[in-house]
Amino acid sequence: MSGKRVAVIGASGYGGLQTLRLLLGHPDFEITFLGGERSSGKRWSELVPFLPLPRDLVVSSPDPDAIAAAADLAVLSLPNGLASQLVPDLLQRGLKVVDLSADYRYRSLAQWQEVYGAEARQFPRSDSDLCEEAAYGLVEWDAERIAGARLVAAPGCFPTASLLALLPFLKQGLIETGGIVIDAKTGTSGGGRAAKEHLLLAEASEAVAPYGVVGHRHTSEIEQLAGQVAGHGVQLQFTPHLMPMVRGLLATVYARLRDPGLTAEDCTVLLGAAYRNCACVEVLPVGTYPSTKWVRQTNRALLSVQVDKRTGQLIVMSAIDNLVKGQAGQGVQCLNLIAGLEASTGLPLAPFYP
Amino acid sequence: MSGKRVAVIGASGYGGLQTLRLLLGHPDFEITFLGGERSSGKRWSELVPFLPLPRDLVVSSPDPDAIAAAADLAVLSLPNGLASQLVPDLLQRGLKVVDLSADYRYRSLAQWQEVYGAEARQFPRSDSDLCEEAAYGLVEWDAERIAGARLVAAPGCFPTASLLALLPFLKQGLIETGGIVIDAKTGTSGGGRAAKEHLLLAEASEAVAPYGVVGHRHTSEIEQLAGQVAGHGVQLQFTPHLMPMVRGLLATVYARLRDPGLTAEDCTVLLGAAYRNCACVEVLPVGTYPSTKWVRQTNRALLSVQVDKRTGQLIVMSAIDNLVKGQAGQGVQCLNLIAGLEASTGLPLAPFYP
Amino acid sequence: MSGKRVAVIGASGYGGLQTLRLLLGHPDFEITFLGGERSSGKRWSELVPFLPLPRDLVVSSPDPDAIAAAADLAVLSLPNGLASQLVPDLLQRGLKVVDLSADYRYRSLAQWQEVYGAEARQFPRSDSDLCEEAAYGLVEWDAERIAGARLVAAPGCFPTASLLALLPFLKQGLIETGGIVIDAKTGTSGGGRAAKEHLLLAEASEAVAPYGVVGHRHTSEIEQLAGQVAGHGVQLQFTPHLMPMVRGLLATVYARLRDPGLTAEDCTVLLGAAYRNCACVEVLPVGTYPSTKWVRQTNRALLSVQVDKRTGQLIVMSAIDNLVKGQAGQGVQCLNLIAGLEASTGLPLAPFYP
Amino acid sequence: MSGKRVAVIGASGYGGLQTLRLLLGHPDFEITFLGGERSSGKRWSELVPFLPLPRDLVVSSPDPDAIAAAADLAVLSLPNGLASQLVPDLLQRGLKVVDLSADYRYRSLAQWQEVYGAEARQFPRSDSDLCEEAAYGLVEWDAERIAGARLVAAPGCFPTASLLALLPFLKQGLIETGGIVIDAKTGTSGGGRAAKEHLLLAEASEAVAPYGVVGHRHTSEIEQLAGQVAGHGVQLQFTPHLMPMVRGLLATVYARLRDPGLTAEDCTVLLGAAYRNCACVEVLPVGTYPSTKWVRQTNRALLSVQVDKRTGQLIVMSAIDNLVKGQAGQGVQCLNLIAGLEASTGLPLAPFYP
Repeated sequence: MSGKRVAVIGASGYGGLQTLRLLLGHPDFEITFLGGERSSGKRWSELVPFLPLPRDLVVSSPDPDAIAAAADLAVLSLPNGLASQLVPDLLQRGLKVVDLSADYRYRSLAQWQEVYGAEARQFPRSDSDLCEEAAYGLVEWDAERIAGARLVAAPGCFPTASLLALLPFLKQGLIETGGIVIDAKTGTSGGGRAAKEHLLLAEASEAVAPYGVVGHRHTSEIEQLAGQVAGHGVQLQFTPHLMPMVRGLLATVYARLRDPGLTAEDCTVLLGAAYRNCACVEVLPVGTYPSTKWVRQTNRALLSVQVDKRTGQLIVMSAIDNLVKGQAGQGVQCLNLIAGLEASTGLPLAPFYP
Repeated sequence: MSGKRVAVIGASGYGGLQTLRLLLGHPDFEITFLGGERSSGKRWSELVPFLPLPRDLVVSSPDPDAIAAAADLAVLSLPNGLASQLVPDLLQRGLKVVDLSADYRYRSLAQWQEVYGAEARQFPRSDSDLCEEAAYGLVEWDAERIAGARLVAAPGCFPTASLLALLPFLKQGLIETGGIVIDAKTGTSGGGRAAKEHLLLAEASEAVAPYGVVGHRHTSEIEQLAGQVAGHGVQLQFTPHLMPMVRGLLATVYARLRDPGLTAEDCTVLLGAAYRNCACVEVLPVGTYPSTKWVRQTNRALLSVQVDKRTGQLIVMSAIDNLVKGQAGQGVQCLNLIAGLEASTGLPLAPFYP
Repeated sequence: MSGKRVAVIGASGYGGLQTLRLLLGHPDFEITFLGGERSSGKRWSELVPFLPLPRDLVVSSPDPDAIAAAADLAVLSLPNGLASQLVPDLLQRGLKVVDLSADYRYRSLAQWQEVYGAEARQFPRSDSDLCEEAAYGLVEWDAERIAGARLVAAPGCFPTASLLALLPFLKQGLIETGGIVIDAKTGTSGGGRAAKEHLLLAEASEAVAPYGVVGHRHTSEIEQLAGQVAGHGVQLQFTPHLMPMVRGLLATVYARLRDPGLTAEDCTVLLGAAYRNCACVEVLPVGTYPSTKWVRQTNRALLSVQVDKRTGQLIVMSAIDNLVKGQAGQGVQCLNLIAGLEASTGLPLAPFYP
Repeated sequence: MSGKRVAVIGASGYGGLQTLRLLLGHPDFEITFLGGERSSGKRWSELVPFLPLPRDLVVSSPDPDAIAAAADLAVLSLPNGLASQLVPDLLQRGLKVVDLSADYRYRSLAQWQEVYGAEARQFPRSDSDLCEEAAYGLVEWDAERIAGARLVAAPGCFPTASLLALLPFLKQGLIETGGIVIDAKTGTSGGGRAAKEHLLLAEASEAVAPYGVVGHRHTSEIEQLAGQVAGHGVQLQFTPHLMPMVRGLLATVYARLRDPGLTAEDCTVLLGAAYRNCACVEVLPVGTYPSTKWVRQTNRALLSVQVDKRTGQLIVMSAIDNLVKGQAGQGVQCLNLIAGLEASTGLPLAPFYP
C-alpha cells in the first residue's frame, strides 16, 4: 500500500462522502485520514451511521502535519478559497493533492480572483505559481499531465459535461466558435450539503428554474479550456437550471456546423473516435438520447449527437452524475493516474436502474 | 346561463380534469355534459371521487346530438386526429368549440397531415376549410379573432411558452430570425394520463433527458406563428426535455440581438409594454428568474429577460403551468372570449406555495 | 369591512404564505398588516415576487400598537414560544387572535412547559389564564366555543388528521382506548421554511424515515382531546414519518373494535353521520382509500374506514394537506367563525389534479 | 466457472435488471442466457443501452432446453403464476432455480391458489410437491435449507422487511402474538415496469396513499413464517402504503411486549445477537432510526428498536431496498448459498449518498 494512503478533507460534505464511498470500493487505496472542521473530534460511525468504513476513524481538524503523517495523497473537498489555504502546506510536506474546489482551475490567479471575488477577499492568496503548475483534471483530455502532477484541480461539474461534448468539435474545427449555447440542467446536490432555503425539498421539488443567467462562474472555466483546444478565445452562452432531483447533470450544447454537409452519423463517428480509449465516456447511437438516470452513481459520461439540416445546428447532449464524473469520481480518476493506475480503476460504470 | 352551458369531451384525461376544475371555480359557466369513451356509462363521482361536481353527471359517449342538446359550448380534450372526427358535427349543430388537440392549429391541412402523419393515416380528413377558419387560441396575440370564432385551436404547451417569449421581439424586429434556440423543459403530465412506461415514476423520477431532438412536432407550430408575426419564414431549433416533476414548463429562449446596445432593462420594458393589458402574463424585473413553481396551478405566464453584452445574446425565460396556461386554462380563456367575458374571468393567477 | 381587517404575523414562512394565499381568495377579509422580523422593512413584492397582494404592503416588525391600529384580527405564524410573547399584548388591544403555534393548545401551561421544554426555558410565561381561556381550533368539534373566542389555538397538523379519524369512535365508545396506534406520514413542508440539512431535497428526496418515535410532542396534544372526548385518559402510540414530498399528511389509525360485529360499512355510516354538516370533511365509500394528492391545496379532510374481521381491528385513514387543513386553512376556518361567517367561507375544497 | 453459469428469465423487468446489475458486479457468476417474451430476438445492447453486459446476448424466448444448454442456475423474474409453468421443466433438466415470484412461497399449493386466485385460474397447477420442497429464501433464517435446495422461493419485499423485524421477538416469545400491526411504506418500483396509470409520475408523485388495506397478499406470507417461528398461528394487521419515490421500503412494526420491564436497549441487544453473523443485516443504536436512503441500492437491512414504557409497545423499524434485499439481491444471496459461496458474496452493502 505504499504511496496509496489517502486523506479525505471535508469528509462529511457531498464531495467527501462520494470520495469515501468510491474509495471503499477501490482495490488499491486505503483511507487513512478524515479531515473536517464542523465534525472534528467525532467518530465516523456516529457521524455517518449508514456508511461504515473499514477503520472507524475519528474526524480531525485538517492539520498539515497530521495529514502528512497519515497519508500520501489528499483529496480536498472544501469551500472555494479555503482549499488554497491548505494546499501549499500539503505540497510542501510531499503529499500529492487532488482539489475538488475551483481554487486551482484557472491558470491565472488574477482570473480566479476576479471570478471568485468574494472568496478572494476572504482568503488572500499569492500562489500564482501553483495556479500555473496545477493540472486541470479533465482526465480524457490531459491524462499525461495529470499523471505527473503534484496538484490536480478537478473540473467543475458543468465544465466536465460541457467540455466532453464540445472539445472534439472545437479541436477539429468543425463548429463556429461564436454563438455556442450551453443549456445545462443539474440536480440540487450540486449546491452542497450546507442547508440553504432554495435547496429545501419544499422549495426545489416540483420546480424548474434558471439561475446564474449570464456570467455564471463556470462560463469562464469552460471558455478557458475551450479556448486552449480551439487555439483562440471562445465566448459562449452558458445557462444552468436547477432540477427537482438529487443528482444528475445534463448539458445540451448547441453550435453551428462549419460544413453543412456533416450528418449526425458523421459527428457520432468523430465523437466515438475521440473517446475510443476512454472507459468512462460512451457515445450513443444516433437517435438514442442520454438520460441522467443512465449514469447515476457511475463515473460514466454518455454523449449523443444530433444535426438539424434545416438550421445547420449541431446538438450534443452530455449526461453525467454531477457528484461522480462531475466531482468525486473524476477526482478518483486523477488519483488513479497519479498512483500509476488505469484511470478507471475501481470506479463504477454500470448504473442501478431504476 | 343562456349560451354558457359547457360540454367537456375527454373528461377524465388531464386536459379534461383541468378544464372541469377550472370551470368549477368559474362564476359564469355550467358543466352540462361529460364525454368519454373509456368511462362511458359511469357516474362521475365513482370515476373521480376526489373532484365532486355540482351535478353528478354520467359520462356519455360523445354523440353530437346529445352534446348539442345539452350544451352551447364544447371543450375537446381528445387525442390528435380524433378531435377532427367530432368537430365538424358539433359546429354543424351550432356549438362553438375549443379544441385542445393539434388538429386545427395549422392553417393548412396538408401541413397537419405531414407533421401528424400517423394520425393522418388513421383519421382521413377533408376539412381544409375548418383549418383555415379556426382561430389559433394564443389569447394575448389574437383575442379579437378568438372572440368571434366558431372554432378555436388552443395552442400546444411548448408553443405557448415559447411564443409569449419570442413574439414581441420578432414583431419589433429586434432579434435575428436565424439561429434562435429554444431549450424547453416540461413535467411529465404533458405526456397525458394514458399509462406509458417512460412516464412511470420509477422511470421518470430522478431523471432528466431530451426527447424529440430535431423535428419535434411543436417546432412547426412555433414557426408558423413566429413567421406570421415576423413577416417572413422563421426556422428555429426547439429541443424539449422531460423533467422529474408533475407539472410546469420552462422555455429558455436564446436569440441574437440586432442592436448590440440594447440592455436587459430595455428589453424588459419592451416586453412589459407588449403585455401591459394582459392579466395572465407578467414580466419580472431584471435578475429575477421565473420558477415553474411560481405559476403552478395558475393561468399565469412569467417572463424574464437577460442580455449578455459579451455575446450579444438575448435570453428570454418563460414559465407556465403546462396543464393550465399551456392547455386547459388557455382553453377557458378562449371560452371566456367567445362568451363575451374578460379573458381571465374565473382563472386562478396566484399560486399555492410551496 | 369593519371587523374584517387581518394582520398576518410571520408572513413569509409557510404558515404565513398559505394564510395570505387563502385570504387572497376570500370574499370577506382584507389583509392590512404583514409582520415579520427577518424581512422587516422590505416591500412584499420584492420579498415574494410570485404572490402579488392587492396592496403591496411593507413588512413590519410586529409591534402590538401598529398591529392594533391596522387590524381587527391577527393570525400568528411564529415559532413555538415566541407567539406567547405577543398574544397577550394583542388581546389587550382588543384584537382577536388565531395562533398557529403550539403555545395555547394545552389547557395547562405547566403541561406546555413540560412538553415544549426548550421553548419554555427561552420564553418565560405566566399566562395560565390564557391557556385556559383559549379555544382549541378543531372546527368540526368545537365550533361554538371558537366562534366566541378571543384567542384560538389552531391544532397541529398531526392532531388534526388523527383526531378527525379517532374522535367519533371514541365518543361513541366503539373502540378500546388502549392499544391505539397512529402511524402518520407527512411531507417536508411541515418542517417549515427555515433551512435545515435533513429537509434539503438532496437528503429528503427518495427517502422515507421515522422520526420522533415515542414521545413526539403531538402525542400529548392528541391525547388531550382524545381524553376529553372519551371521558377518561387515553394513552396511544403516535409515530410520524417524513415523506419525500412537499405537502400532504396521511394518518393511518389502528384501534380495536369493542363490538366484533361492526362492519366497515357500519363504521362508515357512523363517521359520515358525525361529519354530516361539515363541509370540509368527507367520508369515502368502503374500499376507496384517500390519497394526500386528493386534498392537496384544499381545506378538505378525506376519511376512509376499513375493518379486519379476523383481527377485530378498525383502520381509519385520514388525509389532509398539512399546510391547509393542517395549519393555515384551519386557521382561516377559525377566523370565519370569529367573524360570524360559515366556517368554510372562501376556502378551496376541490384539488387541482394531478 | 463450472456450475456458475446463470440464466436470467424476465431480464428487462425491474427484477431482471437488478439481478443482471448485481451479477455484473459479482466475482463468481457468469450471465449466459437472457430470457424474455416481449423482447425476444432483440440484442441486449439495443434493448437496454445503459447497462452493457460483457457478452452482448440476444434475448430469447425462455425455452427450457435452450436454458439448460446454456446455464446451471436460473433466476426467474416472471409474473406470478407464469413462473410455475417453467420451473418444473427447468428442475427436470437439472437446473437449480431461484424464483422471485410468489409461486413457491407457500408450503401449500391450495393456499397459493386461494391467495392468488386470479393467477390460479389463469395457470392451472398440480405441483404440490414442489411447493413443499421449495426453500423459502429468507437467508438469515434458513440458510442451510436454501444451500441444499433445488428450488428457492425468494420472499416478497414486504415479508422480508417485516419478518427480519419480527422473527427474533417471536422466537424468544417476547411479544404478544395478537394485535401486531405492520404499517409499511414502499416506493413505486415495487409495482413493476409494466405501465399502469396509478404508477405514473404524474399520479404517484406528491402523493401518499394506502392500498390493499386488510387482506393484502403479503399478509398471509408474513403470517406463514411468523407462525412457524412462533410455534403457533399468528394473525396480524398489515397495511402497505405507496410512497412518492422509486425505491426503498420501510416497515414500522408495532407489538406489545410481554415483559413490561424490557427497555429499548435490551431489545437492541437481542436483535443484534440474532443477526450477529449476518453481513446483510445491521441493528442501529437506540435513537437512530433508519432511512430507506441509507440502504438504497444495497442488500442491507437496517433495523432499529424503540420501546414506549407508557404503552408497553415495542416498535421495530426495518428499512430495505425493495428491489435488492427485497427482491433481486436476496435472490443473489440464495444463488450464492446454492453455489457454496458466502451469502453476501458480490453484493453491495454501502450506499451512495445522497
